[in-house]
Amino acid sequence: MSQPIPRIVRATVTPILISDPPLLNVLGVHQPYTPRTIVELETDTGATGVGETYGDTEYLEVARNLAKAVIGKPLTALNGLHDLAYDSAGLTPGTVNEFDPAGLRGARTNEKIVRSVVSAFEVASLDTLGKALGLPVHALLGGKVRDRVDYSGYLFYRWAEHPVEDAPRDDWGAALDPEGVVRQARRFTDTYGFRSFKLKGGVFPPEQEIAAIKALAEAFPDHPLRLDPNGGWSVESSVRVAEELDGKLEYLEDPTTGIDGMAEVRARTGALLATNMCVTTFGEIPEAFAKDAVQVVLSDHHYWGGLHATRELAALCRTHGVALSMHSNTHLGISLAAMTHVASVIPDLEYACDSHRPWQTEDVITEPHRFTGGAVEVSDAPGLGVELDRDALATLHERWIELDGFRDRDDVAAMRQADPTWVQPPLPRW
Amino acid sequence: MSQPIPRIVRATVTPILISDPPLLNVLGVHQPYTPRTIVELETDTGATGVGETYGDTEYLEVARNLAKAVIGKPLTALNGLHDLAYDSAGLTPGTVNEFDPAGLRGARTNEKIVRSVVSAFEVASLDTLGKALGLPVHALLGGKVRDRVDYSGYLFYRWAEHPVEDAPRDDWGAALDPEGVVRQARRFTDTYGFRSFKLKGGVFPPEQEIAAIKALAEAFPDHPLRLDPNGGWSVESSVRVAEELDGKLEYLEDPTTGIDGMAEVRARTGALLATNMCVTTFGEIPEAFAKDAVQVVLSDHHYWGGLHATRELAALCRTHGVALSMHSNTHLGISLAAMTHVASVIPDLEYACDSHRPWQTEDVITEPHRFTGGAVEVSDAPGLGVELDRDALATLHERWIELDGFRDRDDVAAMRQADPTWVQPPLPRW
Ligand SMILES: [Mg+2]
Ligand SMILES: [Mg+2]
Repeated sequence: MSQPIPRIVRATVTPILISDPPLLNVLGVHQPYTPRTIVELETDTGATGVGETYGDTEYLEVARNLAKAVIGKPLTALNGLHDLAYDSAGLTPGTVNEFDPAGLRGARTNEKIVRSVVSAFEVASLDTLGKALGLPVHALLGGKVRDRVDYSGYLFYRWAEHPVEDAPRDDWGAALDPEGVVRQARRFTDTYGFRSFKLKGGVFPPEQEIAAIKALAEAFPDHPLRLDPNGGWSVESSVRVAEELDGKLEYLEDPTTGIDGMAEVRARTGALLATNMCVTTFGEIPEAFAKDAVQVVLSDHHYWGGLHATRELAALCRTHGVALSMHSNTHLGISLAAMTHVASVIPDLEYACDSHRPWQTEDVITEPHRFTGGAVEVSDAPGLGVELDRDALATLHERWIELDGFRDRDDVAAMRQADPTWVQPPLPRW
Repeated sequence: MSQPIPRIVRATVTPILISDPPLLNVLGVHQPYTPRTIVELETDTGATGVGETYGDTEYLEVARNLAKAVIGKPLTALNGLHDLAYDSAGLTPGTVNEFDPAGLRGARTNEKIVRSVVSAFEVASLDTLGKALGLPVHALLGGKVRDRVDYSGYLFYRWAEHPVEDAPRDDWGAALDPEGVVRQARRFTDTYGFRSFKLKGGVFPPEQEIAAIKALAEAFPDHPLRLDPNGGWSVESSVRVAEELDGKLEYLEDPTTGIDGMAEVRARTGALLATNMCVTTFGEIPEAFAKDAVQVVLSDHHYWGGLHATRELAALCRTHGVALSMHSNTHLGISLAAMTHVASVIPDLEYACDSHRPWQTEDVITEPHRFTGGAVEVSDAPGLGVELDRDALATLHERWIELDGFRDRDDVAAMRQADPTWVQPPLPRW
């Protein structure tokens, strides 16, 4: 009974590049490959587990340092990871703290990088612990309150192909107008059963995106719709769009940047505003909530600091009458498993979560998840319920070694491949 | 590996009466006996665990219903306990919701009763799970970040004896003036090593309690001090006391009742205000924090809803720049173990926690905790690290059966034994 807590004896950090379609946004376009970091842990009892997070160089560096620092630590020492990450990376809290439009995910702080890395180690620890104990991750978080987690279909304006040679291809074709968006939505819902849609906006002048939403509303009258221009609009444009789309949107996501701008749009229109840019750290919550700047926080368990932290964020939101749902960047099945487990334990999820996952044709797990009826089933298998595909991991890591031009996500640079005059658009664009 | 999650096959709720000294407060005096509820769980794999909570009739009833409802549920289904408690008790949220001075713990709501009961089942589940897995409860909460949890010495004005026959006795003697309080503090610190003191006030006119604090400050210049009149003072009196004791108190606890009153005291004096009355539910947080009514929330894991909920409260406090520490009512070793585990996982505990425990000569565990250097060691044994003393439990339950006049805590009635004219004092008293 009283055996010691298993200790971590091996922590492996593997940077990979995964292929990505030419999805458009306010900054430019997704590159053909995007970096992710995969974390593997092993204990002195032979248990193993995996985690996944952002892969850009600055994350990778913190992850590599943390991988050394966790050796010898108890597998259950999740609450200590945060300080360990700071210490091992030689970082101090708060030294970089500014809004970073290039990230499309709000403030850029050491804290957020640290938390993003911690999340991968926390998830890997929970996966390991769960597998060692025969318990699913959700059971380690107090138990699921639902058996399936709903996701929304994540629609993008896109080109048919990347504007460079040797880039990955798919058969989705272009979507650059309302018809293309509706066609994409149709295939999404036919294939995966999504019952709500989010359109990534900020790509075309607002009128064109309003037209796309109206076309979606007509084609899918029973599907709640969302539009997310990543802060691409001025307050005036945001107000105009909110009024034009009044009654047609489930919520409007980050129409403009900044707490004051969002609060003004809210005050003038009464529109429900969601965010993964205006409020992305605990530090932004008091002012944003006090000013009613956001009504739906889209949590990203990576940058909020993991699954326990997501629960804490959920409690904060609940207490303040703000809804919680989930943001997603390009990710693989390990993160989808983590998202699904944590979403399954939060009682008051009102909105389908976001996930880029259907756009990824590659994965590092042996049995990628399937969306059915727009949902992913919550696994009751031990840990996350996924198994690492070591061959796939090795291949994608090889690619990371070879293609050193893609180690930091840069949607602006990718757009420049098509338009040599392209520079990072100042926000608001419209 | 993939064995099913253990299910609960037995849930036993045992009401007990424990002896209590004649400790004075704003309402009256502690009765000779006070009720607690002990919860035992057992799974289909034979694992067992214990929890403890308030014992008044209305809690007991909810607990008895929940005990039936958890049969057959997975041991890890903690997130479902809240709704299960409501359903099984036939309660609806929010039907009773008023400030209840008689409770000395703020708002009286169904939600708080439900959460108090849920906490005992959550703790019992974690104890069971931990024992089944060989993991201490803190490891199930992400791991301790400290090895010892500091408690403050909880000083009370008190009589030497209860004013009734056949009451339990002790050798502490009376403490009804500054000398008595200092003498009590001396014995507390000699015996247990407490390095801070809290005086329960609201018993005498403020001047006398100011004098007691000044005497303590002189006798123990290195011990942080706190004073808690349980909302017994008007705003004017609170301001006067805060000014008189400026620089002598670590914080002032619930000088007056209500968010607006507390906020006014804070605004006029700048004094740090702690509470286990003004903010005792998540619903009270937004207004109280916005008005800067409290700077230290004293969590009671029972009425906040358990150990996970306490972590969530800690995140709320941290986010809003409010400190978290811990409240205590009369309790036994099971709750002290739970308090110590959860306190060990919260990174930013700045203040020593409260505990009545040293006043209790009885316990229901085989090896009651020892305070050394004012702290309790965080157990690394599986579960809570305590073992139920079945003989003690049976004896205290027998007492509950026999002495049916003590099944609901009533400090006013107890005072009436000494002073037949005593009625519940309206707050503020001074
Ligand atoms: Mg977004
Ligand atoms: Mg108090």
